[in-house]
Amino acid sequence: MPARPPTSHDVARLAGVSQPTVSRALRGDPGVSEQTRRAVRAAADELGYILSARGRSLSTRTTGQIGIVVSDLGNPFYLQVLDTVHEALARVDRRMLVLTPDGDDAALPARLLDGSLDGAILTTTVLASTVPAQLARRSFPFVLLNRTVDDAPGDSCTVDNVAGGRLAAQALVDLGHTEIAALLGPETTSTGRDRARGVRAVLDEAGIALPAARVRTGPFDFAYGHAGARELLETRPTAIFCANDVIALGAYNALRGAGVRIPADVTLVGFDDIAIAAWEVFALTTVRQDIERMVQTAADLVMERIDSPSRPPRHVVLEPTLVERATHAPPTT
Amino acid sequence: MPARPPTSHDVARLAGVSQPTVSRALRGDPGVSEQTRRAVRAAADELGYILSARGRSLSTRTTGQIGIVVSDLGNPFYLQVLDTVHEALARVDRRMLVLTPDGDDAALPARLLDGSLDGAILTTTVLASTVPAQLARRSFPFVLLNRTVDDAPGDSCTVDNVAGGRLAAQALVDLGHTEIAALLGPETTSTGRDRARGVRAVLDEAGIALPAARVRTGPFDFAYGHAGARELLETRPTAIFCANDVIALGAYNALRGAGVRIPADVTLVGFDDIAIAAWEVFALTTVRQDIERMVQTAADLVMERIDSPSRPPRHVVLEPTLVERATHAPPTT
Repeated sequence: MPARPPTSHDVARLAGVSQPTVSRALRGDPGVSEQTRRAVRAAADELGYILSARGRSLSTRTTGQIGIVVSDLGNPFYLQVLDTVHEALARVDRRMLVLTPDGDDAALPARLLDGSLDGAILTTTVLASTVPAQLARRSFPFVLLNRTVDDAPGDSCTVDNVAGGRLAAQALVDLGHTEIAALLGPETTSTGRDRARGVRAVLDEAGIALPAARVRTGPFDFAYGHAGARELLETRPTAIFCANDVIALGAYNALRGAGVRIPADVTLVGFDDIAIAAWEVFALTTVRQDIERMVQTAADLVMERIDSPSRPPRHVVLEPTLVERATHAPPTT
Repeated sequence: MPARPPTSHDVARLAGVSQPTVSRALRGDPGVSEQTRRAVRAAADELGYILSARGRSLSTRTTGQIGIVVSDLGNPFYLQVLDTVHEALARVDRRMLVLTPDGDDAALPARLLDGSLDGAILTTTVLASTVPAQLARRSFPFVLLNRTVDDAPGDSCTVDNVAGGRLAAQALVDLGHTEIAALLGPETTSTGRDRARGVRAVLDEAGIALPAARVRTGPFDFAYGHAGARELLETRPTAIFCANDVIALGAYNALRGAGVRIPADVTLVGFDDIAIAAWEVFALTTVRQDIERMVQTAADLVMERIDSPSRPPRHVVLEPTLVERATHAPPTT
């Protein structure tokens, strides 16, 4: 190894390629063959050569980095999303940088636009957010994943949350439930609002009341599900719709802690189908989002957007499915 | 707003401060008063001024970014760590960037050293990793959190994993168990190796055998705990030590799926005390690591290291505690 820090010329010499090929290979240019790329990587590793972020950015105007914005690190749903995004981006030789804004968005556009990212995947956008519009105005490539905004000014990939809410409510109606309660998600999010719309539509059509006393609205978290289920018990429902699985798991634990049998006394239905929902101990009946497909689609959309900045926005909406496990049964009353 | 993109001079004029104060305020220089910082932020927000990563880096030689390296996004333990690191860094006005290398470390040093980070927190380092030594050689500020390497060439903050293993085993011995099995973690990690050492030491001292047939070694994941517990059942143990909570949760679900009563038939003890361990449905008896304190200490160490590059390495070791919930009981045989 030379005493001075190695340069791209040293790497080129060792790999037997031209100097421009070195940086093209190291930033994953698809025009470089796999064989050449391996030779350059091996030479760079041997010499300890590092392509600096600034050098990379200056020479190519790309950073190789895609940001993923997740404000709700406490929800295992996003853990699965992160894991899947990481894999999807690795397949196109991009690194995933996780950005974790606090609830308030004010500093987020500046963070996304500071030149360190080629694009971004936004997963926890609230309906009132101006971030998508700000990014679109600056032609910054992004995609809305999971949550969207009305008239989204950019690409999006979501599940049909109204249809998902309908699936859950129809399952309760078909089982014969009429005493139904709901732990709804935040109305400030498309997922919370649309799942609630689907549930209400089906109950309306079936002529089943959902009185205010049997409805709670709160964050997509365990503590709310836990406390909310205990409160709803006083209204003696035979079934509780939960706006996501984490709320349902909170409800499940609270009900079990109170000696309530599931589903003999109370039916529980969740939404998302996170990995924990399938654990034997819960066997949660839930509305499934295909996380893998949603993430892969979003990754494809943002990479396409980087290549085609002026293409009209595309909105991909996936169909949810009902996964019937062991937390639903007809009412016993 | 001016038609051209706003500059730091525009922000300085609006905020009524000098131009150098603008960038010092925006990068969180502690020499700038809170009042001035607020005025500059408000002016920058109003004008839509964005301090670019490159501008920030060129003008200050700092990036405001600390990397956190987590290769195991499937383990909720790291979700809690990420959430806590994010908060700890926000308090010192630094952003957290999550780096998610695949098992193989080869590209990691280049990613950490590419100029986009002021320092790093490594959470999933394997014992054989050369990354800490490479970073130390280049005087890059880092801290090992949770997992460490022998003779660590930099700061570290860990729990005493040998002591934790001893606590768990001593609890089993005190309950009167002699037919003990173990789902150990990977021997390639300090946590896996040291927890196993603690368990074996206590059992040796008590004259209790831990035959190879009753021991499995595997990754810190749910699937291994699930499959491993089913296999170990054939050896008819009255207690199973699990090297972390995720393994224990896998074991719990497998045993319950097989009709085994916990703790009447089998005692289960985990390690970590992640949030799920406390859920009513599990009420897992486990060895607790104080994640909050471990993370805060690591964040302090890396910030100190950035300020004092030549300070000798510090190794902070926290004491674990046993949390006795509902998955342990004396053997019934």
